Amino acid sequence: MTDPTGRTRLLGVVGDPVAQVRAPELWGTVFRELGVDAVCVPFHVRPTDLEAFLDGARRWRNLDGLLITVPHKAAAMRFATELSDRARQVGAVNCLKVGESGGWVADMLDGVGFVTAFEGGIGPVGGRRALVVGCGGAGSAIALALADAGASAVDVSDVDGARANELADRVSATGVLSRPVAALGRGYDLIVNASPAGMRSTDPLPVDLDGVGPDAAVADVITEPAVTPLIREATQRGCAVQIGSQMTDAQVGGMADFFGYAAAFAEPLR
Amino acid sequence: MTDPTGRTRLLGVVGDPVAQVRAPELWGTVFRELGVDAVCVPFHVRPTDLEAFLDGARRWRNLDGLLITVPHKAAAMRFATELSDRARQVGAVNCLKVGESGGWVADMLDGVGFVTAFEGGIGPVGGRRALVVGCGGAGSAIALALADAGASAVDVSDVDGARANELADRVSATGVLSRPVAALGRGYDLIVNASPAGMRSTDPLPVDLDGVGPDAAVADVITEPAVTPLIREATQRGCAVQIGSQMTDAQVGGMADFFGYAAAFAEPLR
Repeated sequence: MTDPTGRTRLLGVVGDPVAQVRAPELWGTVFRELGVDAVCVPFHVRPTDLEAFLDGARRWRNLDGLLITVPHKAAAMRFATELSDRARQVGAVNCLKVGESGGWVADMLDGVGFVTAFEGGIGPVGGRRALVVGCGGAGSAIALALADAGASAVDVSDVDGARANELADRVSATGVLSRPVAALGRGYDLIVNASPAGMRSTDPLPVDLDGVGPDAAVADVITEPAVTPLIREATQRGCAVQIGSQMTDAQVGGMADFFGYAAAFAEPLR
Repeated sequence: MTDPTGRTRLLGVVGDPVAQVRAPELWGTVFRELGVDAVCVPFHVRPTDLEAFLDGARRWRNLDGLLITVPHKAAAMRFATELSDRARQVGAVNCLKVGESGGWVADMLDGVGFVTAFEGGIGPVGGRRALVVGCGGAGSAIALALADAGASAVDVSDVDGARANELADRVSATGVLSRPVAALGRGYDLIVNASPAGMRSTDPLPVDLDGVGPDAAVADVITEPAVTPLIREATQRGCAVQIGSQMTDAQVGGMADFFGYAAAFAEPLR
C-alpha cells in the first residue's frame, strides 16, 4: 500500500493483546483489490478500557468500523444499540459500525465464517457429531452455527463448567442435541478448538485426540501460531484440518458487506 | 510502506477537518527512514467530541502520541497534565503523548518550527519588524517564537480584536514591542498569515499587501492549498516566501524527539 493520507478511512481492530492479529494485512489486501482508500489499524485496549475506547471511537468521523477480537467479543455486545439476531443468540459480537442514530450496530460472523470455510474446504457439516472446546464468543458462535448448518449433535466443553452448561442449553434450544462434556475427542466427526489453549508453546492440547482417526475433521480458531500443536497432532492422525486463519478469511466477504465496502463479493456469506 | 500489522505502533493526527493534513505521508517517510514500525493515522474529531476522543486514546496501549491540528490546539491543552513552558506561554499544544502517570504530556512546536524553517530558508529573524495575522494557537506560537528569536517588533492582528489585544500583551511581556493592529502589510519585513483565510478559494486575502515590496518576506501556515493566494501575490511582488508545509516539515525532528522515535536528528530543533 501507499501511506495513508488525511482522506484515508479507518477500520480498527481491537484486542488485548493485538500484536497477533492478521486483520491489518488481510484487509490491506482487500482494500487494494476493491480500490478502497482505507487502512486497518490495530488498537491495543485493555478490558477495563473498552468502554472509554468505544465511547471515543464512536465519534471518529472517518471510522468505517471496528473488528472485535479476544477478549472483547462478549463485552463489546453491551455497548451495541442494534444487534443482529445471530449476535444476540451467541451473546457476543466481532464487528461494530456506527449506525445512523450514532450508536453501535453489531454483528457476529465467527460462526458463519467457520461453517463457510469448513464447507468450502472439507465438506458438509450436516449430519456430523461435533465437539466444540471453549465456550467464549467464538466457541458460542461456532456451536450455534454448526447446529444451524445441520450437525446431528454439538457437544460443548469448557474449563468453566457453568459456561459449558449455559451454551449447551442455548444450542439445545435450537432443537439440536447438545451436552456439556469433557474435552475428549473420541467419537466425534468434527472437533473444534475455540479456546485460547495453543497460543503459547507451553499450553497443553485443548482436547484429547486419543482414539480419533482419519474420519474426523479437526479445526482450530487460533491464528498465531498458524499451525497449533492440536492441528499438527490431528494431521499426524490423518484428519482433515482447518486452521484459524481460514475462519477469519472466510468472514471477509460478510464483513465487507457489513462495513459497506462492497455491494457484492463472489461468494457472499449467508 | 507495507501494510500495518498487529505490532505496528500508532501516531495519530487529530483535526476537523482532517482530509487536508499532510502528516500521514510525511511521517510515513520518516518512519521508513528511521526503520520504525509505526503508522500515522488521521482521526476526524469534532470539537465537542475532543474530550471523549482523548479519554479513549489515552488508553490505547500501542499509541506513541498524537499530533493536534486545527481547531483543537487550544482545547487540547486543557487535557494535558504536563506542559512545556512554551506550550503554557502560547496557550496551545500541537503534540501529545501519554506520560508515566497515564496523563497527557504536551508541547507546542509550531513556533520553533516556523523560525527554524525561516532561518534555514530565508534568513535571520533578528531585527525584523513582524506582523502576525491570526492569533489562534499557531499564530500565538509564531508570534512568541519570533519575539524569542530577536524580532524588533511583533504586531498582531485578528478579526477578534480582544484576542489580538490579549496576544499583544503576552508578547509585550517578553520585552518585545507588540501592538494589536489592522491586517495591513505595509511597513513590515516579515508578514505571517496564521489565520485560516486562504483554505477556501473564495476567501479574501488575509492581509493587505499594498505597499509591500521585495524586501519583505511573506509566510503562510496553510498547507492546503500548498500555495495560497497570499503566497502567489507575494511572489508576484518579489517577496521571499515560506509555505505552510515548510513550518510543518521543520517540526519533524523536534517531534521525533518528543515521541521518542529518534535520540538525535541531523538538525535538532531548539
